[in-house]
Amino acid sequence: MLNCIISQLEAIKEAKPLVHHITNYVTVNDCANACLAIGASPIMADEATEVCDITAIASSLVINIGTLNERTVASMLKAGMKANECGIPVVLDPVGAGASGFRNETAAKLLENIRFTVIRGNLSEIRYLTENCANTKGVDVSDKDMGQSSVDIAMRCAKKYGCIAAITGKTDVISDGQKVLCIDNGHEALSSVTGTGCMCTTLIGVFCGANSDPFVSAAGGILSMGIAGELAFERAGSLGFGSFRIALMDEIGKLNGTTILERAKIHEKAC
Amino acid sequence: MLNCIISQLEAIKEAKPLVHHITNYVTVNDCANACLAIGASPIMADEATEVCDITAIASSLVINIGTLNERTVASMLKAGMKANECGIPVVLDPVGAGASGFRNETAAKLLENIRFTVIRGNLSEIRYLTENCANTKGVDVSDKDMGQSSVDIAMRCAKKYGCIAAITGKTDVISDGQKVLCIDNGHEALSSVTGTGCMCTTLIGVFCGANSDPFVSAAGGILSMGIAGELAFERAGSLGFGSFRIALMDEIGKLNGTTILERAKIHEKAC
Amino acid sequence: MLNCIISQLEAIKEAKPLVHHITNYVTVNDCANACLAIGASPIMADEATEVCDITAIASSLVINIGTLNERTVASMLKAGMKANECGIPVVLDPVGAGASGFRNETAAKLLENIRFTVIRGNLSEIRYLTENCANTKGVDVSDKDMGQSSVDIAMRCAKKYGCIAAITGKTDVISDGQKVLCIDNGHEALSSVTGTGCMCTTLIGVFCGANSDPFVSAAGGILSMGIAGELAFERAGSLGFGSFRIALMDEIGKLNGTTILERAKIHEKAC
Repeated sequence: MLNCIISQLEAIKEAKPLVHHITNYVTVNDCANACLAIGASPIMADEATEVCDITAIASSLVINIGTLNERTVASMLKAGMKANECGIPVVLDPVGAGASGFRNETAAKLLENIRFTVIRGNLSEIRYLTENCANTKGVDVSDKDMGQSSVDIAMRCAKKYGCIAAITGKTDVISDGQKVLCIDNGHEALSSVTGTGCMCTTLIGVFCGANSDPFVSAAGGILSMGIAGELAFERAGSLGFGSFRIALMDEIGKLNGTTILERAKIHEKAC
Repeated sequence: MLNCIISQLEAIKEAKPLVHHITNYVTVNDCANACLAIGASPIMADEATEVCDITAIASSLVINIGTLNERTVASMLKAGMKANECGIPVVLDPVGAGASGFRNETAAKLLENIRFTVIRGNLSEIRYLTENCANTKGVDVSDKDMGQSSVDIAMRCAKKYGCIAAITGKTDVISDGQKVLCIDNGHEALSSVTGTGCMCTTLIGVFCGANSDPFVSAAGGILSMGIAGELAFERAGSLGFGSFRIALMDEIGKLNGTTILERAKIHEKAC
Repeated sequence: MLNCIISQLEAIKEAKPLVHHITNYVTVNDCANACLAIGASPIMADEATEVCDITAIASSLVINIGTLNERTVASMLKAGMKANECGIPVVLDPVGAGASGFRNETAAKLLENIRFTVIRGNLSEIRYLTENCANTKGVDVSDKDMGQSSVDIAMRCAKKYGCIAAITGKTDVISDGQKVLCIDNGHEALSSVTGTGCMCTTLIGVFCGANSDPFVSAAGGILSMGIAGELAFERAGSLGFGSFRIALMDEIGKLNGTTILERAKIHEKAC
């Protein structure tokens, strides 16, 4: 698996994929910079009139519902269906699913009309998509959801939507409905900086945009974020969250095969 | 007063309040990070269809009109009224009030329909809300307003709207219409970084979200920003505005009772 | 030329021009901070109802179509025409021109209805505006466009629209349709950080807002970005893209006549 991830990382540097984002205005700058740092090219465009043109020239599409509105939901639908038509991968970040009726209906509409390649969220969000009930506390995981098995939920989500499902948290869990991969990298400081979840989804979109095995791509994006978080904390964590956030972007840009081999803590889970 | 502020800061770390923001797209990332750094949880949602659901699960609501539009003004009204109904605190940042007819009408509409717990702005903005005339120069204080007494304006604003009014500037002034508190912390470099006013309003929203005395909360948010600004400048000011801005976020995250006791320059003003 | 640029920089610090931006939500925070760092004051306002009020009190207007939508395009048109009426400079950043029908139609509509003082873009974007055909790859320069002569395109763009045209790239080219100026400052790391193009346009808007010779202003903005990029890379480049980006903002704020005289690599091109 690690060798596959490293090959995918090299393919990104080679192909410089263009990643179309329809995403929230809170963390969009961080997503664009993460995309550039790892060697890809971001384009953000959210008007219904133009999203099909943009998706058509992109290598992958990232849909993030963080600050959705009626206008951009229509654009998400159009872009996602276009991506399916063009055969390019589509990654969903269902930010805050479970927290409002509008988010729930939007998630349902997107999942009905678009075949997603990868869905990444926290436990509450993925649980909502899987079971249509949740205890989402805003955009964070509810304490009530902590007890639930991420492995179980990820497997069921992947089966339900025919996609790769990824739940990030203390241990990250990735499933294609059959096999399950767990990643124990990362650092708790990542949850004290906004956008680390969104950036993780962006990195998955980047991996998918340059490669054809989305299970490896999901693992690659999540592992990259986790290792970068560890390195950033070691270098700058004691300075504070502002410095940690900058170091995080530094480390995303410096990731390479050697660091991945040294740092990765991944294991397949028997199911 | 300092002990009350320190208790409120501890209550934030304990309660981790969820703070719903309807705010501008210029500084929204800084607000989210300031919110997280001090120990709370931000959620940004601005579509009319969902704001009531989000406000209903939040501990406080921050309305910032920095980049308002017809769509988001409708959402601000709905969310504000919902917050009043739920009994959660609502904080207003009337960015640029006085600078355009649309901002003025919006401010009036919000103030007519929503009972605000705290209003924080610069002298020109608060003067506009109080006297319906101003010399706002964009989003900065007009030179013509400098001569006006902040104490007088803050008192009158607080009385007029039955809220805590806070005017930030070289000396920050906070009033509930009866008593007045002045804070002399801060650093002029704060005005060379965008969003320090918005982040200050966010911090007030965070304090309010975990505590029940909004006069102390307003003082707590403003004092936190001022002290963090001083510490950040001492550490990184000579490097430049980019580094200062990052250090500012570091320091917001590190604030504690000891630093507050050592640094605070506050005094009550005889009225 | 260098002395003219230095005088213009001093005029900015003196006049602190208010620069109205209608720009994208990806890099808007960076533009606001670049504007403040160099000594000006930014205001972002994009609702049709208020843009004329805001433009009327501004010293210059920057229109950037990075994340355009129907609503903001209407605002761009109103604000641009108001700026022409008021006689204040208008700077256009045609982000992604050539990449979608909507961007192309919008660019055409803006250029038909507004007299721009300066247009700045990459080679693909300016080529599109000049020849109505392009090979834009998202928001980056297409490889196919690399061979084309920037000098030729800049001259023709300037003549076609009666403005200063600036193409930034490895060598930056500025033309008024008659003379051509080339700038060889900058660093390739600038293309690994989002918003450096947008920030460059903002700096041109700032220079224009405090001065009356837009050819010098365009050179001043571009040279400032290029020199700041070099200094930032020397200081922080080895740390990574996150640190480089922060150092860039530091250096924009520290630019002065001495650094400009030491660093500038500009030459007029015989036509």
